[in-house]
Amino acid sequence: MAVKDYISNSTIRRLPRYYRFLDELKKEGIYKISSAELSRRMKLTSSQIRQDFNCYGGFGQQGYGYNVEDLRREIGAIIGVEKKIKTILIGAGNLGRAIAVNFDFESSGCKLAGIFDVDLNLENTQISGVAIKQMTKLEEFCRAENPEIAVLCIPEESAAEVCETLINCGVRAFWNFAHYDINLDFDSNDIIVENVHMGDSLLTLAYNVNNKKT
Amino acid sequence: MAVKDYISNSTIRRLPRYYRFLDELKKEGIYKISSAELSRRMKLTSSQIRQDFNCYGGFGQQGYGYNVEDLRREIGAIIGVEKKIKTILIGAGNLGRAIAVNFDFESSGCKLAGIFDVDLNLENTQISGVAIKQMTKLEEFCRAENPEIAVLCIPEESAAEVCETLINCGVRAFWNFAHYDINLDFDSNDIIVENVHMGDSLLTLAYNVNNKKT
Repeated sequence: MAVKDYISNSTIRRLPRYYRFLDELKKEGIYKISSAELSRRMKLTSSQIRQDFNCYGGFGQQGYGYNVEDLRREIGAIIGVEKKIKTILIGAGNLGRAIAVNFDFESSGCKLAGIFDVDLNLENTQISGVAIKQMTKLEEFCRAENPEIAVLCIPEESAAEVCETLINCGVRAFWNFAHYDINLDFDSNDIIVENVHMGDSLLTLAYNVNNKKT
Repeated sequence: MAVKDYISNSTIRRLPRYYRFLDELKKEGIYKISSAELSRRMKLTSSQIRQDFNCYGGFGQQGYGYNVEDLRREIGAIIGVEKKIKTILIGAGNLGRAIAVNFDFESSGCKLAGIFDVDLNLENTQISGVAIKQMTKLEEFCRAENPEIAVLCIPEESAAEVCETLINCGVRAFWNFAHYDINLDFDSNDIIVENVHMGDSLLTLAYNVNNKKT
């Protein structure tokens, strides 16, 4: 399969959406889908979908449409869902705990291998089968286990220091829930950051409510 | 200030980002910023920033740049940050609780006015000064208080029913954390949905880790 050299961020961001929609179709018992129907459901034009798929050499349509299961597997392979990237979570407060308990890391291509917190009282408490460790054990753990992704659920004040430690220990990717912009301080092509700015999301909704055309 | 009739979603989504960056600048004690520096920090081109601002009639630059405080206030007013939209949260499990406890609704233009859960044991428990109410009280509450936004932190299975109830009670905007696509079932221009698909976000990070150019 010929993969294009340059793939835009917008296309990359749509891959998980395709993957999720195809999973929903599968659950609804739909085995085949036409590109017109896929386009209608996903609110994308057919040409947009074709362009996205062509970035990865295109996916075969048989007869009147795509095979849902095959397409999902191919897109999953491109994302690397089966790789189960070793991931650690820093900060077991409310949000960190909510993510550790509820979030299915494995179906997002990751494996939660460690949870760290500064609170001594939490030490050895299990969340989703993973024992919480002291922050003082973080460096030792990283050097032994080489996690690739760190999920940051820590306060803004401690974010810079924790990031620096993690980067020094070889962590190169961050799923960032902290109100802290990793990009600003570690402006390196080597570091991959996915920021979840929940505030931006609610502000967008507030804008849309306040500026609704009636 | 002349506001354009059509403003793209991308521009709208950048408003909260401008607002957040300007807040960071303010905290750093920066009072004025040139458009070149704003563009460098936000990783947007100057022409993109100019186009965005022109949608709202443009914001005055004095001398060498924008006044940080004034620009932030103007963008905040466009978003409607001071409106404090009445908001309810449905589902006080781990995620709902994490959001209710940690998330600053007021700085995102909303006011948390009610929390609802099916778990009878949670009734009257306070989170962030708001008492959890039984789901059976939801309709009565909505008809009396007219909340405009509902935050959904409920399982996929109950999402359709809860959405229908809320829409029938006049709720028109959803901040949706449920693995359920409100758009699919209630395809109305009247309903505003902001989906937070955490899975898509982590899958994007996984893709970027797995497809990193070395």
